[in-house]
Amino acid sequence: MSTDQNQMSLPRYMGVPTFMRTPYQPDPAGLDIALIGVPYDGAVTNRAGARHGPREMRNQSSMMRSIHHVSKINPYDLCRIADIGDVTFDGVFDHDAVVRDIEAFYARVHAAGVVPLSAGGDHSVTYPIFKAIAKEAPLGLIHIDAHTDTWDQFQGSKFMHGTPFRRAHEDGLLDGERTVQIGIRGAQNSPEGWDYSLENGMRVIFMEEFTKLGVEAVIAEARRVVGDGPTYISFDVDGLDPVYAPGTGTPEIGGITTIEAQTLLRGLRGLNLIGGDIVEVAPPSDPSGNTALVGATLMYEILCLLAETRANR
Amino acid sequence: MSTDQNQMSLPRYMGVPTFMRTPYQPDPAGLDIALIGVPYDGAVTNRAGARHGPREMRNQSSMMRSIHHVSKINPYDLCRIADIGDVTFDGVFDHDAVVRDIEAFYARVHAAGVVPLSAGGDHSVTYPIFKAIAKEAPLGLIHIDAHTDTWDQFQGSKFMHGTPFRRAHEDGLLDGERTVQIGIRGAQNSPEGWDYSLENGMRVIFMEEFTKLGVEAVIAEARRVVGDGPTYISFDVDGLDPVYAPGTGTPEIGGITTIEAQTLLRGLRGLNLIGGDIVEVAPPSDPSGNTALVGATLMYEILCLLAETRANR
Amino acid sequence: MSTDQNQMSLPRYMGVPTFMRTPYQPDPAGLDIALIGVPYDGAVTNRAGARHGPREMRNQSSMMRSIHHVSKINPYDLCRIADIGDVTFDGVFDHDAVVRDIEAFYARVHAAGVVPLSAGGDHSVTYPIFKAIAKEAPLGLIHIDAHTDTWDQFQGSKFMHGTPFRRAHEDGLLDGERTVQIGIRGAQNSPEGWDYSLENGMRVIFMEEFTKLGVEAVIAEARRVVGDGPTYISFDVDGLDPVYAPGTGTPEIGGITTIEAQTLLRGLRGLNLIGGDIVEVAPPSDPSGNTALVGATLMYEILCLLAETRANR
Amino acid sequence: MSTDQNQMSLPRYMGVPTFMRTPYQPDPAGLDIALIGVPYDGAVTNRAGARHGPREMRNQSSMMRSIHHVSKINPYDLCRIADIGDVTFDGVFDHDAVVRDIEAFYARVHAAGVVPLSAGGDHSVTYPIFKAIAKEAPLGLIHIDAHTDTWDQFQGSKFMHGTPFRRAHEDGLLDGERTVQIGIRGAQNSPEGWDYSLENGMRVIFMEEFTKLGVEAVIAEARRVVGDGPTYISFDVDGLDPVYAPGTGTPEIGGITTIEAQTLLRGLRGLNLIGGDIVEVAPPSDPSGNTALVGATLMYEILCLLAETRANR
Amino acid sequence: MSTDQNQMSLPRYMGVPTFMRTPYQPDPAGLDIALIGVPYDGAVTNRAGARHGPREMRNQSSMMRSIHHVSKINPYDLCRIADIGDVTFDGVFDHDAVVRDIEAFYARVHAAGVVPLSAGGDHSVTYPIFKAIAKEAPLGLIHIDAHTDTWDQFQGSKFMHGTPFRRAHEDGLLDGERTVQIGIRGAQNSPEGWDYSLENGMRVIFMEEFTKLGVEAVIAEARRVVGDGPTYISFDVDGLDPVYAPGTGTPEIGGITTIEAQTLLRGLRGLNLIGGDIVEVAPPSDPSGNTALVGATLMYEILCLLAETRANR
Amino acid sequence: MSTDQNQMSLPRYMGVPTFMRTPYQPDPAGLDIALIGVPYDGAVTNRAGARHGPREMRNQSSMMRSIHHVSKINPYDLCRIADIGDVTFDGVFDHDAVVRDIEAFYARVHAAGVVPLSAGGDHSVTYPIFKAIAKEAPLGLIHIDAHTDTWDQFQGSKFMHGTPFRRAHEDGLLDGERTVQIGIRGAQNSPEGWDYSLENGMRVIFMEEFTKLGVEAVIAEARRVVGDGPTYISFDVDGLDPVYAPGTGTPEIGGITTIEAQTLLRGLRGLNLIGGDIVEVAPPSDPSGNTALVGATLMYEILCLLAETRANR
Repeated sequence: MSTDQNQMSLPRYMGVPTFMRTPYQPDPAGLDIALIGVPYDGAVTNRAGARHGPREMRNQSSMMRSIHHVSKINPYDLCRIADIGDVTFDGVFDHDAVVRDIEAFYARVHAAGVVPLSAGGDHSVTYPIFKAIAKEAPLGLIHIDAHTDTWDQFQGSKFMHGTPFRRAHEDGLLDGERTVQIGIRGAQNSPEGWDYSLENGMRVIFMEEFTKLGVEAVIAEARRVVGDGPTYISFDVDGLDPVYAPGTGTPEIGGITTIEAQTLLRGLRGLNLIGGDIVEVAPPSDPSGNTALVGATLMYEILCLLAETRANR
Repeated sequence: MSTDQNQMSLPRYMGVPTFMRTPYQPDPAGLDIALIGVPYDGAVTNRAGARHGPREMRNQSSMMRSIHHVSKINPYDLCRIADIGDVTFDGVFDHDAVVRDIEAFYARVHAAGVVPLSAGGDHSVTYPIFKAIAKEAPLGLIHIDAHTDTWDQFQGSKFMHGTPFRRAHEDGLLDGERTVQIGIRGAQNSPEGWDYSLENGMRVIFMEEFTKLGVEAVIAEARRVVGDGPTYISFDVDGLDPVYAPGTGTPEIGGITTIEAQTLLRGLRGLNLIGGDIVEVAPPSDPSGNTALVGATLMYEILCLLAETRANR
Repeated sequence: MSTDQNQMSLPRYMGVPTFMRTPYQPDPAGLDIALIGVPYDGAVTNRAGARHGPREMRNQSSMMRSIHHVSKINPYDLCRIADIGDVTFDGVFDHDAVVRDIEAFYARVHAAGVVPLSAGGDHSVTYPIFKAIAKEAPLGLIHIDAHTDTWDQFQGSKFMHGTPFRRAHEDGLLDGERTVQIGIRGAQNSPEGWDYSLENGMRVIFMEEFTKLGVEAVIAEARRVVGDGPTYISFDVDGLDPVYAPGTGTPEIGGITTIEAQTLLRGLRGLNLIGGDIVEVAPPSDPSGNTALVGATLMYEILCLLAETRANR
Repeated sequence: MSTDQNQMSLPRYMGVPTFMRTPYQPDPAGLDIALIGVPYDGAVTNRAGARHGPREMRNQSSMMRSIHHVSKINPYDLCRIADIGDVTFDGVFDHDAVVRDIEAFYARVHAAGVVPLSAGGDHSVTYPIFKAIAKEAPLGLIHIDAHTDTWDQFQGSKFMHGTPFRRAHEDGLLDGERTVQIGIRGAQNSPEGWDYSLENGMRVIFMEEFTKLGVEAVIAEARRVVGDGPTYISFDVDGLDPVYAPGTGTPEIGGITTIEAQTLLRGLRGLNLIGGDIVEVAPPSDPSGNTALVGATLMYEILCLLAETRANR
Repeated sequence: MSTDQNQMSLPRYMGVPTFMRTPYQPDPAGLDIALIGVPYDGAVTNRAGARHGPREMRNQSSMMRSIHHVSKINPYDLCRIADIGDVTFDGVFDHDAVVRDIEAFYARVHAAGVVPLSAGGDHSVTYPIFKAIAKEAPLGLIHIDAHTDTWDQFQGSKFMHGTPFRRAHEDGLLDGERTVQIGIRGAQNSPEGWDYSLENGMRVIFMEEFTKLGVEAVIAEARRVVGDGPTYISFDVDGLDPVYAPGTGTPEIGGITTIEAQTLLRGLRGLNLIGGDIVEVAPPSDPSGNTALVGATLMYEILCLLAETRANR
Repeated sequence: MSTDQNQMSLPRYMGVPTFMRTPYQPDPAGLDIALIGVPYDGAVTNRAGARHGPREMRNQSSMMRSIHHVSKINPYDLCRIADIGDVTFDGVFDHDAVVRDIEAFYARVHAAGVVPLSAGGDHSVTYPIFKAIAKEAPLGLIHIDAHTDTWDQFQGSKFMHGTPFRRAHEDGLLDGERTVQIGIRGAQNSPEGWDYSLENGMRVIFMEEFTKLGVEAVIAEARRVVGDGPTYISFDVDGLDPVYAPGTGTPEIGGITTIEAQTLLRGLRGLNLIGGDIVEVAPPSDPSGNTALVGATLMYEILCLLAETRANR
């Protein structure tokens, strides 16, 4: 809110909450990294609530500070970073309009040469983000999630939170060979989504393989898959075990711990990272607020990665 | 679940929960009154959650018993009553399809000569219900709510939870002169919905008039407005003060008490009542469960009214 | 956040939350009314938590809209209104420094000729507000609360949430003869605070008298007491019954309803109102969020009063 | 815990919680009034949880202070009052043993000439209390509740929370003609309990009559019924509307407000009161803690009544 | 509710909740596996609430789908599976009657040649289940729990939730040599239960040994102990760490993770499994609902095991 | 409360809650170990609430029993142990007075030759404890926490919950060379606290090193650091991952598990332990109550250590 980063040293409960207590600046011009909310959850199959995710992640992100205790990166020393607000919608009830609105918002950010780091919203929003930022070439993807999100449709809809990466792949926005999906688990009524990922070259690390390999080997595998091409990080909090992230629409028990998630993200330093998102934080199912705190902290971890990449460009 | 109403004398926490512990019977044939869930909340402007309303109202309705302590009516002595399940949807993400699915479900009930008593879902669902049951003639309406729900559109959508009675009126399904709206309150960005109601002959009892008149005078006025024509009762729980019904999408403080609501409903005996609904119970915002208990109890009150009307036909 | 009030017509869960979705403008210059947070609760005797009040009231105030449904006042048509942020503190652990910081903040607002409407924070903050805005002449006070807050000290401290009006009166900032205290109740270990109020000419309306008189007579009495001199409204949410406001530090059962509170406030139109506050909203004790919603709605009610007064000056 | 009542002036969150912060003294000898917990809920028909009632009421009773703000009674000036702990059980799973254990505990208190004021536990516990204290003569009863608790049995058990006053009446411990039951409501599967009360001379004030009469007339009627014989007050918190007392096993909407309850109790001054209880506070269903606060405050109200009666003997 | 498994592809919040969205069929005839609720918690020593376990596990089990993501087993392809409802009770307050009612219910299932998979209720219910299904020969047992549940009595009762396996063993229904108890931990006032297990040949894997061995070695040990004889799985959710299962009556910190539990269960394929249960899910202590979700998911894991065993018979 | 330890075998929900159900005895004379509450949280930088920690830890400590299931230590056989109540304050709003009050209380315990085991309160309270018990010689320290708490000041205050070990070290009460800090993590705005620890010889085990080493190596390192000199254990529950301890003021994701914490503490047997504390349990942020249960259980673990040390003196 303030343009003054000293606000970070105030007690955390004070002030209008922007992401990470960064300045609020609706126009992305001049920024290196834009923090963006996408308050949309009209595409979920079970519990709604992720529409409230950006606001509550902003609230909990007041707990974040500047110097990373492992890497010693201070992203605010490396980059110009601001909260540019939420995507707004002209027709929040119309899936096609929602896709257009999100795409248009990110196209503006992308045109300004700014790296987007987003807080969803349900996972459907990643597809229009890709439409805006992957026009030049298909992106690599590091995708943490309980579900591959490569299903074809649900209840007749092709734009919903189980389909974004199928749509992006079909549109040539996502490079299947440079995609790794981590933490996948949970029964399904059809193997169709799993099959789509496997048949299209995606590296699917089911939760059981994750546990067997250990996080360091998973990091190595993820780095191998995405290589040095431009890569996006998409983190669905239901990839975590629901004790860490109960506030989500389709929890699956038996997931990743936050230590594993932090270690995994920290293992991605030096990749060619061009954007990221944290999605599916649903505050109404989060009585302790921990899910939003987890979401905000993982957002900070990704911010450090993006800032270092950007600064080293 | 059982076809045996003795299940009502079991401890309330036992068994698969149907509405009021009535038998589950998907086919309405042979019934007098059908209890129906409409688990849809894709048309709200603020918090979703009413999709979970039918299930939680079924759960809390186990607390209901048979003999009304004031009227001594036992609806199960007067009528054949069952839970016929939920409306199902082929395309839950498509507003037009939702309207068609709900209309088709109620058309089947209506064709069987069965009186519907429904648990929403958001208030948008009342419009397709009217499309099914008001074909023969426009209905009168006793409408308890904080909002007139006669707005024109929101974010470009004409089918949303602030518009059902405008749509029904425009379609000739609702008789404006036989409509009373009770408990209206709360600031608006435009007076357009209030104006539509007033300009189309609806009797709008704002909360302040409700308080001044007292509930007995409101009953008299409601009876005068609807007369002896066929009348529907639509009860949005946000008509109640949010201390009674915190679990709702757009709460407005300063509303009706449950004693007033019960008194009001009991004052409607003898009217020509042909259906009713309780809508906008949103369990994710209801930490104590009281909203669903209130919803279930008011549903029982309306059930007694409908049963008496039906038995006296 | 936006300077554009059209943001009020967006879905309420979107955007960075400012009070009432007004523009954020740290400098009060040019405003008629400033909305201010005072996130301080270091002076409570029981549960802390009101430090989180401003942020959660901002969050819930997204539910507010513009046109009052009774008075038809649109405060945004009458006045220039903005959220000027929170009082910041240099030494949040030092009572004397806190008093100085708050006083300095409000002195700046006062010097700019701007009417302050504040969200606490515990009730201690009203004393330094008075130090800033009552320099010219002692103010009249309409005070809704369960406690007179005219005690002398607690645990050796004279600056705490049970003492602000004693301090203000001792300093000549509060006119005892033009002070009315409404909703007082609850056992005490000493009658000292009650006695101070009565012995210094304040009109104390205990809850039992409130119930007996009815709200219209209370309005008349309040108007009589404050007359046409400059008057401040201080609303401690523990004046309400704790079912309406469980999220507060020292709840007392048997209080005012929200309908009564709204009616009371609406009865104050035309008085010479020069500021107001809503205090003691403590979100950690508010599982449903209703207390903050109540707080935000009452803040909107007072905003309408202040805007009308200001516009008629 | 301390024998020093100055502990009442400490911050309320401090210390080991006894009822009202009175001294803990297991032996009733020398006391006028004993505060007692009965942590038993093995006789409920729906949700358990009242076993945790005494502990949580002790916790919340730290909020109580000494001087009543209406009557100016300070019970601690009038009587020697202590927390004598909880009834302990040798066989908490055996209904007959439970009855014996409770009766024996109260017989000891009664033999010491001490007036008992109890916190339940479910309502079944009042029957063995009567067995201990009504040996000499049947007692009059002022009974606030949603249910008459004069049913015969449930699931084969005659000792459960819907039967205590039938059992007490059958045993000649309760004088039906001097019994008033206030706040009764809610559907039943059989009118048998209502009928038992009416056929045995009890004055049953259903909720609707309560609302019509108003609380002052109810007080007059209650005083008329019990006359000047020895009288017990039994307050089931489900007599209150569940917004005031969600934490209870069998809530019924449409009940008494806390203001009405306080007014009612204050209207009983001067009666020949020889004991009382607050029952059915069930903390697991009480997310905000308000039910226990209400229970503790009503316990304080009854304590003032008992102290005045005792002092005037 | 429907006999149509397509209901599994509907949104999960729809419909009357049966276990796993299987058809409701009160008569077990013709089934391979019956899903059963035992809503009884009258035998706990601390917090009650497991009476509500079956209903909430049914609710959360809507999240389950058909194809296991590791084994690719679809139990519904292998077996005829239905929800046959809850055990009902004639005398829920009488321990002996409860034992008789449960035994009779399972005897009927057993006589029909149907494998029972149950949702408790407290752990006492496993004893009468054994009385019904272990008549022919003592069963082997894989028992996950924080407590050995081989204590002798509590408060004079031999039928309570700390004693079922002592009773079953004493009755010759449980083969001590073919019993393994996993996850045991927490202080005790007497080592008597631990000693009983060890002295009677049971293999007790305390939590510390579990951690040291790792889950694969525990699987091997469990398989060694039970061999190829008929074996029952009894899973008390307090075997899990309370972060995964806060909703339980006697939580003990430092327990099993859900990944470990899932891995353990999946390691039991090919054993001669003849029934199982998930017990001690207590929804009132489960604000996020995760305990019931965990319970439902583990129930699905056991269902896959039982279905495979049954199909391979 | 009782002087009778048999109260430990009663159901856990009964009775006035003292720590571990030990006798309440305000005078420490004659004890070996005193259990003490320090209900103070006036020195936190974010959420308050730890003032309620002692009461809720007492409540949850009813779940504790006597015989440790690993070590078989029964501390009550080894030592005289009692709850001596809470530190009381004369001026809870004045930091200097708070330091004096706490120091004086512990000086009295220390003078009686009694080992203190405390429940905070925020972490600031450990500094005045050190002032009382480390007069003779600087103490060694095993410190589990997310933060080093060796910062210099916050908002101008040197006595706050991020500074106790800096103050103790500056005063010569803490031996930096015999200090190990375990679990440190989370971003900071300045490295100053980390630097102070490292520059003053403290062994800082950041969370990442903890994970890499494993808990057994951490135990060995901790034992090496503190050697056989007198050593204090200070356990801030934010050292744990917030899924185990959401109820704390400044949670940091990615922390220690309870199994690791228990293993770590059990690895400290035989050290020269002279006191300990569990701090920062903040019940208002702990909807499930698990944080207080964790706090009480860890307090029991430390009690076993202290009892063994004391008995072997």
